[in-house]
Amino acid sequence: MSELRKDPIVDRWVIIAAERGRRPTDFETPRPTPGGAACPLCEGNERMTPPELWAIRPEDTAPNEPGWQLRVVPNKFPALRIEGDVHRRGVGMFDMMDGIGAHEVVVESPRHDWTMADGPPKAIDRVLEAYQVRLSDLYRDPRLRYCVIFRNYGSEAGATLSHPHSQIMAVPVVPRRTKSKLKAALEYYGRKERCIFCDTLAQELALEDRIVIDEEEFVAFAPFASRFPFELHIYPREHSHDYAALGSESRARLAKVMQQCLAYLRPALGAPSYNYVLNVAPNPAHRPGRPHYWETLPYDYHWHLEILPRVTQVAGFEWGTGFYINPVAPEDAAQFLRDVMNEDIR
Amino acid sequence: MSELRKDPIVDRWVIIAAERGRRPTDFETPRPTPGGAACPLCEGNERMTPPELWAIRPEDTAPNEPGWQLRVVPNKFPALRIEGDVHRRGVGMFDMMDGIGAHEVVVESPRHDWTMADGPPKAIDRVLEAYQVRLSDLYRDPRLRYCVIFRNYGSEAGATLSHPHSQIMAVPVVPRRTKSKLKAALEYYGRKERCIFCDTLAQELALEDRIVIDEEEFVAFAPFASRFPFELHIYPREHSHDYAALGSESRARLAKVMQQCLAYLRPALGAPSYNYVLNVAPNPAHRPGRPHYWETLPYDYHWHLEILPRVTQVAGFEWGTGFYINPVAPEDAAQFLRDVMNEDIR
Repeated sequence: MSELRKDPIVDRWVIIAAERGRRPTDFETPRPTPGGAACPLCEGNERMTPPELWAIRPEDTAPNEPGWQLRVVPNKFPALRIEGDVHRRGVGMFDMMDGIGAHEVVVESPRHDWTMADGPPKAIDRVLEAYQVRLSDLYRDPRLRYCVIFRNYGSEAGATLSHPHSQIMAVPVVPRRTKSKLKAALEYYGRKERCIFCDTLAQELALEDRIVIDEEEFVAFAPFASRFPFELHIYPREHSHDYAALGSESRARLAKVMQQCLAYLRPALGAPSYNYVLNVAPNPAHRPGRPHYWETLPYDYHWHLEILPRVTQVAGFEWGTGFYINPVAPEDAAQFLRDVMNEDIR
Repeated sequence: MSELRKDPIVDRWVIIAAERGRRPTDFETPRPTPGGAACPLCEGNERMTPPELWAIRPEDTAPNEPGWQLRVVPNKFPALRIEGDVHRRGVGMFDMMDGIGAHEVVVESPRHDWTMADGPPKAIDRVLEAYQVRLSDLYRDPRLRYCVIFRNYGSEAGATLSHPHSQIMAVPVVPRRTKSKLKAALEYYGRKERCIFCDTLAQELALEDRIVIDEEEFVAFAPFASRFPFELHIYPREHSHDYAALGSESRARLAKVMQQCLAYLRPALGAPSYNYVLNVAPNPAHRPGRPHYWETLPYDYHWHLEILPRVTQVAGFEWGTGFYINPVAPEDAAQFLRDVMNEDIR
C-alpha cells in the first residue's frame, strides 16, 4: 500500500509509492518502447492490461478483445489503489493517509505509432470524451477529491511507454497547485465578482500579442508569465467550471484546437516531448470538511488545459525556489506559432 | 534587459530572459563539456570570464591570473543585471518589474575534473566560505530581497558547464517556495513559540529511521515527505536563521557532512546528477513594504541545505499539481545510505 505524506513546512502532499517495484539502484531514463508483441497497449495484447473500465469499440466486439478505437484500463502498477479507507492520521507532527485513489490509463489508439499532433481531430475527440466519462464516474466517489488528467509524451516528458496514452489519477486531497488556483480565484471573485480566468483571457485577447489561436469557442495563448518556452494554455471562451458538461460539438472544436497547437509546436521545437494537464474543478461530492472555496466553484473556477513542452532542464534554481527562468518570451513564442499557422494556411 | 513577471493566478514570479541568446528552435540537452582551452572556468582561462568579484588565492598572485583555489565571477550570460532600477509596474491586471539582480558563478576549483563527492572537505569549506562572503555582500543592497544559492551537477540536473561550479542569484522578490516556508514558520511560531524546523529535526531524531548522519553540529536526513528518491536535508542542530554567521569550525563540519552525503549517494544511485540548494533567510535590509514575517526571522526561520538527486523524470502529474510521486520511501533511502556508511567505516 502506498502512502500520502504531507510536508510539515511547505503545504504539499507526496505519494510515497515504494511498492511500485523499483529498488534504490534501479533508476533508468525512459527510452522509446517498441510496438507489437511486447507492448501492453497495442491491439491484440488486451490481456496484458487489467480488464477495461470503458472503451469505444464497435458493438459487435467484446470487451478486452481487438477491434476497439480507445480503451480505459486501470494502471497495472498503480501509485494509488481504490480499495480500502483513506485512514487519515498523524505521526507526531507529520500528517499522512493511505494511498487510496484511482490510477487509470487512457489507451488513445490501437496504433502504436499514432501521434496526437497528426490528428485527425476526431481521434483526439475520443480521448476528450474518455476524460469526461471517467471524470464523471470517479467523482461519484466522495473520497476522491480531485482528478488529475494528464499526458506525458516523449522520454523527456517522463513517458515510460511510447504507445499513445494519457493518465487519470483521482486523489484523496486537493493538490497544492490546484489549491492555490482555487484560493486565488475565490479571493478575486470576492473583490470583483468576476472570474480571474475570464479576466485573464479578456486581457490577453485585448493585448493580442500572446494569442496563438482565437477560435469561436476556445482561445490558445502563451501566458504572460509562462514557466516554460512555448507553454500554451487553452481556455474555453465562455465561463465554465465543469469540463464534464462540455457538449459534443464544443468538444470537437477543442480537439481541433489541441491538434493545431501540437502540430505547430513541431516546426518550432522539432517534435518536442511535452506534458499536458487538463485542469478540472475538484469533486463537488466532497462534503464534510470541505473548505469554503468549494461552494463558489461554479462562479469563480474556469477549467483549462495547459500544454508544457519539455525543452529546458529544470535545475537547482527552480527546485529550490519555485521560481522559473524562461529563455523565450511568450510573445516571441506566440509570434512564431502564428507565423507557422499562416504558412500552413497559405 | 530581462523581466520579472508574476502569474496573476498562481502567486509565482518568472524571469523572462529572452536576451540570453537562444532562438526558439535552439534548444539542446546539456552535454558534458571538455576542460582545457575551451573551458571558460579552467585555470589559465581567467580572461574568458568577467573580472572576479572575490577569490581565494595566494597573496603573491594577482586577480584574474592563475594560481587561485576558488573564484567568484559574474555570470557571462546573466539572467538578471545589477545596474538600473527595479521599476515595478502593472500591465492591466499583470505585474512585472525589470530583471534587476545579481547572477554570480562560484568556480569551485581550478581543476576541471574535481568532484565535490571526492572532497577533501577543505575544498568544500572554501565553497561554503564563498557563499558566506557573497551573501553578506549582496545583502547590503536593499533592492535584493533574496539570495538563491544552488549547485547543478551533471547534465540531468541542468548543468551546462562540466567544470565544478555553483551559482548565486540575488533576486528582487522573495520566491514562492521560500515565502511558503516563511509563512508556515511564522504561523507555527505564533501557535507554539517554537521553530518548525527545530521541531521537525527533533521529531526525526526521535524516530531515527530517516536519519543518515547524526553529527555534533549537523544532522542529515531523508525528509518524511521527500519529493525525490534519496532527497537529503542537512540542518544545523542549533537554531540559527543566519547562514553567514556560521563560524569557521562549524563550517568545516558542514563541509564534511556534505562530502559524506554526496559520496554515499554514489553507490546508491551510480554517480547521480543532483541539485543542491542552500536555503538562507531573506535580506534583513529590505525595508518599506516588507511583510510581517520578516520581523520574526531570527526566531522562526532556520537555514538548511537540500540535496536533490535527479534520477526520476518529473512529468505531467507533478507539473500540473505540484504533487509528487516518489518511488523510494525515505526510510529505505536512509537505511541504504547508513549501510553504505557502515561498510565504509569498517
